Amino acid sequence: MAEQKKTTIVLFSGDYDKAMAAYIIANGAAAYDHEVTIFHTFWGLNALRKENPPAVKKGRLEAMFSKMMPRGADKLGLSNMQFGGMGPKLIKKVMKKHNAMPLPDLIEMAQEQDIKLVACTMTMDLLGLQKEELLDEIEYAGVAAYLGDAEDGNVNLFI
Amino acid sequence: MAEQKKTTIVLFSGDYDKAMAAYIIANGAAAYDHEVTIFHTFWGLNALRKENPPAVKKGRLEAMFSKMMPRGADKLGLSNMQFGGMGPKLIKKVMKKHNAMPLPDLIEMAQEQDIKLVACTMTMDLLGLQKEELLDEIEYAGVAAYLGDAEDGNVNLFI
Amino acid sequence: MAEQKKTTIVLFSGDYDKAMAAYIIANGAAAYDHEVTIFHTFWGLNALRKENPPAVKKGRLEAMFSKMMPRGADKLGLSNMQFGGMGPKLIKKVMKKHNAMPLPDLIEMAQEQDIKLVACTMTMDLLGLQKEELLDEIEYAGVAAYLGDAEDGNVNLFI
Repeated sequence: MAEQKKTTIVLFSGDYDKAMAAYIIANGAAAYDHEVTIFHTFWGLNALRKENPPAVKKGRLEAMFSKMMPRGADKLGLSNMQFGGMGPKLIKKVMKKHNAMPLPDLIEMAQEQDIKLVACTMTMDLLGLQKEELLDEIEYAGVAAYLGDAEDGNVNLFI
Repeated sequence: MAEQKKTTIVLFSGDYDKAMAAYIIANGAAAYDHEVTIFHTFWGLNALRKENPPAVKKGRLEAMFSKMMPRGADKLGLSNMQFGGMGPKLIKKVMKKHNAMPLPDLIEMAQEQDIKLVACTMTMDLLGLQKEELLDEIEYAGVAAYLGDAEDGNVNLFI
Repeated sequence: MAEQKKTTIVLFSGDYDKAMAAYIIANGAAAYDHEVTIFHTFWGLNALRKENPPAVKKGRLEAMFSKMMPRGADKLGLSNMQFGGMGPKLIKKVMKKHNAMPLPDLIEMAQEQDIKLVACTMTMDLLGLQKEELLDEIEYAGVAAYLGDAEDGNVNLFI
């Protein structure tokens, strides 16, 4: 029997379009029976935030970061083509027209396909994000766990 | 006989400097007898646009995207150091001075070296780009084809 | 005996946060006995600049680039969350609070762990950076050397 292929993605970016690319590749790889991990670090953590999280206690700096950063997949901006701030709206409109799956649905599909969604604990700490604020049923780990997955990976990407 | 090595690059970015990096690595790998694929998705598709494409019929949203996005490799902006909009000009000037190959030449060289240039059909659809508007002799495919190449790749990069 | 694992990172970005991510992964991989290379190209070269370099003679264009680009790891900007220019200060404050290692220390640690830090000679040329201006004890190479390392790499990333 052939060994199971592995795909790992570091999602560093908090841009809607880059996160879309990450989740499309991840869902594709899972459909082809890869074991898939998305390791969310830095701004990529924002894709995992709940839209309406419970209130949590934070330091002032951390509270400011939390407030300034987009809360959840649907709130992310674009890496490009801002169109004076209208970019995300336009992209979503054109996606709807062409029946492309919006990011929150791609994330849900990833969870249904048992893609391992990991939040980087070190950068959660830095950005003041707490477990209660992130999606349920994700995992928490650091760079060592990422490397453990990636060193046997067939496709390893940093997005 | 040793198996042929493989390099795959996802070119997501539409920045001149990032596209240059992608094509320099790709051309280098091809020179070392790797089988090389560049999969152009999202803004990376702009590197494949013809400067003077034939007229094609588009929806209004798609026509707007097409108009706002840079038309071809020579028109891309920089990821950095805009210098008030003069960045691309300055980089090209300094490249000329040091005999570095401009992006359109790097793309031509890639085609001469039989690097597989692929346009992502899903994002072509989203951004309203049609085959007639892109360079000749490229291929069209989706994420499944990319993964088929990448899962046996020695060097897989997302740029 | 198991073969030694290899990690290679192309550091293209000159952003503080992306360089941090690169060096954290690199240091982690070295701690797990990987042979690690960071290939600094384009704006990533700025992370290797000395804060107070000796005076060197340059052309006008090159002198302008040198002046406009951040001089050394501590001077890099953020990819995101500029907070009206205060972003880098805020991130460093929050890093200090959480005992995260600042970028210059991460680079020093990389050198102590014998991570191979390489400066891309082609882009040094383009941006007018000279050896005297970069950190001591780094290596100089081109895309061929990078590919030589990467084609046997277990984890290859472009950041």
